Amino acid sequence: MKLVYFDNSATTRPHREVVKEVSDCMENYFGNPSSAHRLGLGAEKKMKQAREKVARLIGALPQEIIFTSGGSEANNTAIKGVITPGCHIITSKIEHPSVLRVLQKLEKSGYEVTYLSVDSRGIIKLEELENSIKDNTKLVTIMYVNNEIGSIQPVDKIVEIVRKKNKRVKVHIDAVQAAGKIPIDIKKLDVDLMSLSAHKIHGPKGVGALYVRKGIKLEPLILGGGQEWEVRSGTENLPGISGFGVAAEIISSNLNEKIEHVKGIKKHFIERLKEIDNIVINSPYDDNHIGNILNVSFEGVRGEVLLHALEDYNIFVSTGSACSSKKVSEKNYVLPSIGLKECHVEGAIRFSFSYINTVDEVDYTIEALKKSLSFLRRLKK
Amino acid sequence: MKLVYFDNSATTRPHREVVKEVSDCMENYFGNPSSAHRLGLGAEKKMKQAREKVARLIGALPQEIIFTSGGSEANNTAIKGVITPGCHIITSKIEHPSVLRVLQKLEKSGYEVTYLSVDSRGIIKLEELENSIKDNTKLVTIMYVNNEIGSIQPVDKIVEIVRKKNKRVKVHIDAVQAAGKIPIDIKKLDVDLMSLSAHKIHGPKGVGALYVRKGIKLEPLILGGGQEWEVRSGTENLPGISGFGVAAEIISSNLNEKIEHVKGIKKHFIERLKEIDNIVINSPYDDNHIGNILNVSFEGVRGEVLLHALEDYNIFVSTGSACSSKKVSEKNYVLPSIGLKECHVEGAIRFSFSYINTVDEVDYTIEALKKSLSFLRRLKK
Repeated sequence: MKLVYFDNSATTRPHREVVKEVSDCMENYFGNPSSAHRLGLGAEKKMKQAREKVARLIGALPQEIIFTSGGSEANNTAIKGVITPGCHIITSKIEHPSVLRVLQKLEKSGYEVTYLSVDSRGIIKLEELENSIKDNTKLVTIMYVNNEIGSIQPVDKIVEIVRKKNKRVKVHIDAVQAAGKIPIDIKKLDVDLMSLSAHKIHGPKGVGALYVRKGIKLEPLILGGGQEWEVRSGTENLPGISGFGVAAEIISSNLNEKIEHVKGIKKHFIERLKEIDNIVINSPYDDNHIGNILNVSFEGVRGEVLLHALEDYNIFVSTGSACSSKKVSEKNYVLPSIGLKECHVEGAIRFSFSYINTVDEVDYTIEALKKSLSFLRRLKK
Repeated sequence: MKLVYFDNSATTRPHREVVKEVSDCMENYFGNPSSAHRLGLGAEKKMKQAREKVARLIGALPQEIIFTSGGSEANNTAIKGVITPGCHIITSKIEHPSVLRVLQKLEKSGYEVTYLSVDSRGIIKLEELENSIKDNTKLVTIMYVNNEIGSIQPVDKIVEIVRKKNKRVKVHIDAVQAAGKIPIDIKKLDVDLMSLSAHKIHGPKGVGALYVRKGIKLEPLILGGGQEWEVRSGTENLPGISGFGVAAEIISSNLNEKIEHVKGIKKHFIERLKEIDNIVINSPYDDNHIGNILNVSFEGVRGEVLLHALEDYNIFVSTGSACSSKKVSEKNYVLPSIGLKECHVEGAIRFSFSYINTVDEVDYTIEALKKSLSFLRRLKK
């Protein structure tokens, strides 16, 4: 039975070229990039190439890319790197836990945090943002694309408002779900910090990056040997970084075609969902939502149950974000924030696509959904 | 020309089995270990196996192993994880920068740090340690084996003294250069925290671990999805972690034989160094120094120059630790701390062995050293 992987927002299958690059670096560029000899220099050269490729993905300068161990570390570093004791920080209620938990902890040690609410589309209210900016606001940290419902925040307008109200505020964008999914021109966006992750774009796990605009001095999260221009210490993970470079290069090429292909999958999926009754689409096909995330609430079933039913058809999806999906205690906070009723939160499934998915896989999934739902809903009656 | 890699304390060449495991995980276990479906569970099972293998390397329980992005992150996490505001911390003057720089920064925010001096062997004075422990001491952090001169600290005695003087003190051991080089029975050693790194034992870069004794609650350095029992968030780097497991398993098997083999290399090297005049051995062949590190000062030459001369013979060594070797501004602090004269600091070379090295490589290196020194020393006259 064919494997249909519709959980690409949790993680992606690394490209063959990426696997090859990682292996090649482990075998042929095993030197420590910080070593003074030829094996070190060879590794350093590979680092440089990877940095250029990742920079190109968002239109940054290579020296503005700091490699990290992933998106979570990048988010933690960005936030803790620019704040000053007791300052005010603005974020939204639907951020990733690697933002929210940092801020919740900071609140306990004297920082002030404003959590912006979102509308039914999952988008912050710009007026609320504007009214929240204060004299002691140091940071606005907003995710570009939400990992559960795919809402796209108006980053350009956010930056515009922030710059107008307080020039000392830094803007950090968590673009883990956005890079390689929408074209990003960071210089045009004019943001100060941006988090990226390799494994969401068919790159290796354990690698991410933080864009740090030239001229911004960041307090490091991990101190040590002073790698990455003193911002991130630790022996560089060259194989992972170089694999990230390859993944960034592949996804950058014909990005618009890839985006259109993914949009087509979502459009077709939504069209065919008309054949199924009693559903709510939480991430419609429009400009406010990313093309690769389709969140649907199926009434009368629990998301986990439907997830496992689909597994029997070799279809892999998730109920929410991967990090909290196995923790029963962890309540979903994104779906309630857009006004979803509890029964719709409980019956939600996130289908997340990659450009390597096909329309045929959608058709197969629709049939599996029909069969699973007919059985599960009957069971519940 | 054969490649002689004597820079194994900077990093090691990953074993073929490790490269294979990393590739296999990327291709066949690409699911997010936190995903609820079968692909996630498969990845999680691999995580579990790797955790058991790494735990076995030091005699820990699997649930006491927290995977990190490397030794530096493990050191940062250990220190920041157990301290309380304004407490007192004890360390030594010859720690790795990922310990020293964290402590130097903490000093600026009201923490008190005692830096123990070392004797001519590079070993702390136990009396000084004992006298330094105070009521508000929270942490003693000492490296097991020094990365530059290979001095082995008496961890068992350190723990004994700490426990006797103040039961509330936590003991953290940076064992990045010790694990897989000396047998470690962590339960017998009775330490609370221990840092490990994969790439020093022929594992992948970008992976490390922190042993956290059962019952110790650690404040996380990276917050987010709550992976690694809430201690270290971020999507798990399964390929790296699983590769670490394989490396740990390989080095654990017949460890004593491997250690004896490496000792034999050092012994033979020192024996043959008698053929070269005007040298000082900074890490003698004795029980106070590890078998895989041989630090030698060559009078009348600069270390960097000799390093590059040896490169012409395809021999790779380093002058100090990798992280600071390329930074001219970075002064070596380890060698002066054992009382070395400046000319001996300047002429120091670190040869660091692995069990895959051979005695033949030593003979080849001795001949290369003779030729290089004869030329370079003549040049200087």
